[in-house]
Amino acid sequence: MSESQKKRTVFIVSDGTGITAETFSHSVLSQFSADFDFTLLREPFITSEEKAAKVAEKINAAALTDNTPPLLFSTLVKPEILAVVQQSNCIFLDIFGACVNQLETALETKSRPTIGLSHLSASSKQYRNRIEAINFTLAHDDGQFVHGLKEADVILVGVSRCGKTPTSLYLAMQYAIKAANFPLIPEDFERGALPKTLLPYRNKLFGLSIQPDRLSEVRNERRPDSQYASIKQCLYEVAEAERLMRRESIEWLSTTTKSIEEISTTVIQILGLKSNSSATY
Amino acid sequence: MSESQKKRTVFIVSDGTGITAETFSHSVLSQFSADFDFTLLREPFITSEEKAAKVAEKINAAALTDNTPPLLFSTLVKPEILAVVQQSNCIFLDIFGACVNQLETALETKSRPTIGLSHLSASSKQYRNRIEAINFTLAHDDGQFVHGLKEADVILVGVSRCGKTPTSLYLAMQYAIKAANFPLIPEDFERGALPKTLLPYRNKLFGLSIQPDRLSEVRNERRPDSQYASIKQCLYEVAEAERLMRRESIEWLSTTTKSIEEISTTVIQILGLKSNSSATY
Repeated sequence: MSESQKKRTVFIVSDGTGITAETFSHSVLSQFSADFDFTLLREPFITSEEKAAKVAEKINAAALTDNTPPLLFSTLVKPEILAVVQQSNCIFLDIFGACVNQLETALETKSRPTIGLSHLSASSKQYRNRIEAINFTLAHDDGQFVHGLKEADVILVGVSRCGKTPTSLYLAMQYAIKAANFPLIPEDFERGALPKTLLPYRNKLFGLSIQPDRLSEVRNERRPDSQYASIKQCLYEVAEAERLMRRESIEWLSTTTKSIEEISTTVIQILGLKSNSSATY
Repeated sequence: MSESQKKRTVFIVSDGTGITAETFSHSVLSQFSADFDFTLLREPFITSEEKAAKVAEKINAAALTDNTPPLLFSTLVKPEILAVVQQSNCIFLDIFGACVNQLETALETKSRPTIGLSHLSASSKQYRNRIEAINFTLAHDDGQFVHGLKEADVILVGVSRCGKTPTSLYLAMQYAIKAANFPLIPEDFERGALPKTLLPYRNKLFGLSIQPDRLSEVRNERRPDSQYASIKQCLYEVAEAERLMRRESIEWLSTTTKSIEEISTTVIQILGLKSNSSATY
């Protein structure tokens, strides 16, 4: 926090997990983060007036301590619960309110706020798809269990430590995409060819690469001062992997400055993958 | 889709990944899902007027095909890019607009929309925390590498296949929480005690349980008709695990009807864990 930033407490209040509300608040608040230092407090599962009353007490206490009313991001829909928190000393922001109102008018249809709550249901097909994809991805991490590759939606390839595993897991968790990953190793470069195992699945391959100096840094965290982590080895492997991917016409991107969300989005976009879930309902 | 549902195309347009926008739209649209069947199309990385023009064409084409204007959820902030998509035949919804306007008034501060974009940056400390947590969780899955448990923020315990691994990965990915997990197995029940390895970390333990019939179902998917998956074995293990957790005063919950988001939120809440990331900025 810099000296010029003003402190401000933010409550995120939801009758569910509040994760969507938290994501939303991050985005909105980041537009004010040059001037404010926000402390976020998530209050999930506020499903009764009693729970709401406790949250209202916390908000009032924070208002006193901060000497200014906290921000309150809410996804609460039940009027009697909402009323309780709204009585507290806060700046109230209804996350979905404006969009829902606009849609009611445009679609000429009343919203049914409680319907949304069931979508995370652990028994839904989409939810089971996610768990299945996570299990698939774990079982097919780093070239394991090659016999399942025919079921993969995508197979990420690249040198060791270029970001394949976190990206695969994100694709599985967020989109129920069965993402396997397979390392490209010095033996492949010496042979100058893709691993034989991958040849039948060429249309599922997507390459990840990385800047050699960043790769060396990442590998050094794992195995300090090893030949594996040396800049010479990293330069060699990255150059060879990129040469191989170019020659085999495998689409690829550099992960160096990209988050797993950005990498995953690009993979989905380029390969035209379909989400098998609505992870985030 | 039921016959009474009206079809509607929805575009989610963002200059970033559009993942926050997608999550938000899911929540809003679910309130209308009884009456409408929505097809969601995410258009990420719309960072130029040329890209915006292509999206506008797609929107106009969908309006013709559907014979009704698509919904457009936008997080675009650059006026010149926004102007291009707004010219298309759509119902325009500015996801952050209403809240940002309200906050500008309440905080007496102008928003700085571009600042938010940098928060996903792959070089930030918070981002590196996430990757480190994912690696930690993978290395400490299912009782592996017990020497690292002292660094864990939480250790999930429970019978095989009760949901420990997906929950651990979610905690790591979303909140950069170092979540290890450790199985409770028949040997522990016969001995009537927690695995010795866990004794120094009692305050980090959180238990997951599950209904025996659901457990049997899950185990049968993995190893059909095995003793491991039999309802008798599942009844025994679940009863013993719950007895052990009660006796050792380990907080626990049943995962049977809960999503990984709900389980993770409860674990964070009960143990008072702190996010080491802002995964979703």
